[in-house]
Amino acid sequence: MTDKGNAGAAGLVRHGAAALGLLATSRLRRTPFSDRVEAAGVKAYTVYNHVLLPVLFRSLEADYRHLKEHVQLWDVAAQRQVEIRGPDALRLVQWMTPRDLSRAIAGQCLYAPLVDEAGGVVNDPVVLKLADDRCWLSLADSDVLLWARGLASAGGFEVAIEEPDVWPLAVQGPKSDDLMAAVFGEAVRAIGFFRFARLPFRGHELIVARSGWSKQGGFEIYVDDAALGGDLWDALVEAGEPFDVGPGCPNMIERIEGGLLSYGGDMTLQHNPFECGLGKYCHLDRPTAFLGRQSLEAIAAAGIKRQIRGLMIDVPTLSPCVAPWPVRLAGEAVGQVTSAAFSPDAGCGVAIAMIDAAAWAIGEQVTVETPHGPADATVATLPFDLARPAGAVAS
Amino acid sequence: MTDKGNAGAAGLVRHGAAALGLLATSRLRRTPFSDRVEAAGVKAYTVYNHVLLPVLFRSLEADYRHLKEHVQLWDVAAQRQVEIRGPDALRLVQWMTPRDLSRAIAGQCLYAPLVDEAGGVVNDPVVLKLADDRCWLSLADSDVLLWARGLASAGGFEVAIEEPDVWPLAVQGPKSDDLMAAVFGEAVRAIGFFRFARLPFRGHELIVARSGWSKQGGFEIYVDDAALGGDLWDALVEAGEPFDVGPGCPNMIERIEGGLLSYGGDMTLQHNPFECGLGKYCHLDRPTAFLGRQSLEAIAAAGIKRQIRGLMIDVPTLSPCVAPWPVRLAGEAVGQVTSAAFSPDAGCGVAIAMIDAAAWAIGEQVTVETPHGPADATVATLPFDLARPAGAVAS
Repeated sequence: MTDKGNAGAAGLVRHGAAALGLLATSRLRRTPFSDRVEAAGVKAYTVYNHVLLPVLFRSLEADYRHLKEHVQLWDVAAQRQVEIRGPDALRLVQWMTPRDLSRAIAGQCLYAPLVDEAGGVVNDPVVLKLADDRCWLSLADSDVLLWARGLASAGGFEVAIEEPDVWPLAVQGPKSDDLMAAVFGEAVRAIGFFRFARLPFRGHELIVARSGWSKQGGFEIYVDDAALGGDLWDALVEAGEPFDVGPGCPNMIERIEGGLLSYGGDMTLQHNPFECGLGKYCHLDRPTAFLGRQSLEAIAAAGIKRQIRGLMIDVPTLSPCVAPWPVRLAGEAVGQVTSAAFSPDAGCGVAIAMIDAAAWAIGEQVTVETPHGPADATVATLPFDLARPAGAVAS
Repeated sequence: MTDKGNAGAAGLVRHGAAALGLLATSRLRRTPFSDRVEAAGVKAYTVYNHVLLPVLFRSLEADYRHLKEHVQLWDVAAQRQVEIRGPDALRLVQWMTPRDLSRAIAGQCLYAPLVDEAGGVVNDPVVLKLADDRCWLSLADSDVLLWARGLASAGGFEVAIEEPDVWPLAVQGPKSDDLMAAVFGEAVRAIGFFRFARLPFRGHELIVARSGWSKQGGFEIYVDDAALGGDLWDALVEAGEPFDVGPGCPNMIERIEGGLLSYGGDMTLQHNPFECGLGKYCHLDRPTAFLGRQSLEAIAAAGIKRQIRGLMIDVPTLSPCVAPWPVRLAGEAVGQVTSAAFSPDAGCGVAIAMIDAAAWAIGEQVTVETPHGPADATVATLPFDLARPAGAVAS
C-alpha cells in the first residue's frame, strides 16, 4: 500500500528529499517495549513526556488500514502516570479538574481535562481511580508531575505524588477482544468501556482498562514492572497470529477522523475546555471545588469566540500540518488548522481546526491555506461522520 | 571529516542500518529559525520543551571541530522562557532555588538550579534579572511554567507568569566577539560573562547575553519578536563570511568535555544539587527562603552517597549512550553513565556518570559496560582537563 494521498509520504520531518533523523540520547527515555518496537521495524518516533513514542511502522495509510481491520500492539508508555495517594488525593485531583469526580468509583477511568487558574487546559489525562485515596493520571504531553507537586506543596494537601514504574501498552483494533481473551482469559470481554480490572499475567496482576487513543476499540494494559514488558509483548505477538496482530501506534489519519485532540497541538494552555469542545466535562452546575472555577464561570457567562471543528478539505493529497494553516472566510482569517491528513475512507482531507464564531457553523464553506495552495473546505462535526459525503454535512 | 571515532556515525536513532525519522506535527513547535536551519542542512533534531532543537549538521566530529575553531549560529529557541513579573516576582524565583539571589542586579544572568520540596532538581535555568520585579527563566527541558504557576496559585504570590514571545539564538565559538561586533557594534565586546545588554538590531532593542551551552565562548540573543528571527539569522550569516560562520548546535562531544550536564539525562528530579556537583549554588549558610531548604539541609548534614563525575574510557570508538550504561568496580555496580562520546581531543571516550562514593575518587579505575562490551575507564573531574592524558588524572 502506498501513501499517495498523504503527501510527503511518511510525513517525516524533511529537508528537501531527505528525512531527518532523531538524535538518540538518554534524555529521551526508552521504554520496556523499545527493543521490541525497533525489532518490529518502527520507522519514526515522536517525543512525548520526554519518552520515545513510536508513530510510524508501515506507512500512515497502511498502519491506518491495518488498525481498522485487525489488531495492533502500541507502545504508549510515553503516557506517563502521575500517582497521587494519601488522605487528600481525591481532593487534589478534583482541585485540578472541572469534571465532577465525586461519584467516581474505584475501577473507573475518567477522561478529565485539567485546567489552571485562568481556565487554560494543562493536560487531558485519563484518571484511573484505584482506591478512595489513590489515583493515577495517565497523561498527555506536559509535566503534570510538576504541576501537581506545585499545587500540593503550597496548598497544604496531604498527599504523595510520584511517577510510578508503570508503562502502558495498548491493544487496539476490532480484534482486540479476541487477542486479549487469548492472553488474559475470557474475563477481559466483560470489562466495560472506561472501566478496568486486575488480571493476572504470569502470576503478576496487571491493570487492564478498556480504553485507548483510537475509535477502533481495545485495551490499555498498565505494566507496573518494566521487566515484564518484553514478555507481555511477546505473548501478545504469539497469541495474535490468528488475528493478524502487528505493531502499531496512534495513527494520525484515524485519530483525526475520530476527533481525538492532540494536547500541545490542537489544544494548549491558551485554550479553555469550552473552546476545545469539552464543555460536558465542566460541571459548573455542581458544587465542585476546583482551581479554575471562577475563570470558567466567567467564560461560560461571556460565551466563547472560537471552537474546535472538523474540516473536510477538497484535495486529492495532503501534507502533514507541521505548523498551523490559516483558515479564511471570504478572505478574512477565521481560524487555523492544527492537524490534517488525507482520509482514504472519507475520500478527502480531514483536519482539526480552531474556528471563530463567524465560520463555525456546520456546513460553512471556508478556504484552507495548505502547503499545496488554497483549498476549499467544509466545516464539519467532530468526530467526522464518514458515512456521509462532505457536501451533505450541512443538511 | 568522518565520525570514525563515534560509532553509529551520526548517533541517530537506528533500527538496524536505517536511521529513524521524526514525524512532524504541530505539537512539536517550530521556531523563528526553523526554515533557515533546514535550508542550512540540519540532519537531526531532538525535541526539547515541546520545540524542535537542531542537534546535527555535518557530523558530530565535524560540528565539534568547526565549533572549536570558528563561530556557529545555534537555534536554541527550545530554551523556552518563563517570565515572572509583579511585586512578588523575585520572592517566587528565590522560593524555587537554593541559590541566594538577594545580591543579583538587573543585567545579570544567574545559573540557578531549581529544586522541589524534597530537594530534587526540577530544572537548571539561567535566570535573567530584567528588573526588580521581572525575571526570565531560560529553561532546560521541563515544564517550569506549570511548576511556577502551581506554586504561585496555591502560595499566594502576587505575580504574572507567562511564556513570552522570546526565542534565543546562540552565537558560539572563538570568533563570536568578532561576528557579533560586526552586527551589533563594538559594544558587545564589553559585555561581561553572564551579563546582558540591550542592543539595537534594525531599530529593535534585543537582549544580548554573554552565555551559552558550550565552553568556546559566545552570546545568546533573546529575540523577542518571532518575525525578526529570519532577518537576524541572515544578517549574522552575511556578516560572518570572513569568520567562516556556519550553522551549529549544542555538540555532544564538546559539552561532555566541558562538563555541561543535560537535564533529564545526566541530572533529573531524582537527583539533588549536591549529587550533581552543584553544591556551590546551595547557599544554606545564608537566610535564603526556598522551598527545598529543609530537605537540602538534611541532605547536607547526612552527606551524599553518589556524585557526578567524568569518565575517560579507554576505547577507540564509542556509540552514543541512549540508555544508562552500568559502571562497575571489581564487579560491583557503582554507578551509571548517562552521556558519552569519543573525544578527538582527549583521544579516548569521555562520559558523564553518577558514581557511588566507593568509586568516586579521581583516578579510580572502573569498568563501563558499553554497547561494544566492557571497557576500562578512569574517574576524572568535570570539566575534563584535556591537557593531561587520562592516566595522569590521579597524579
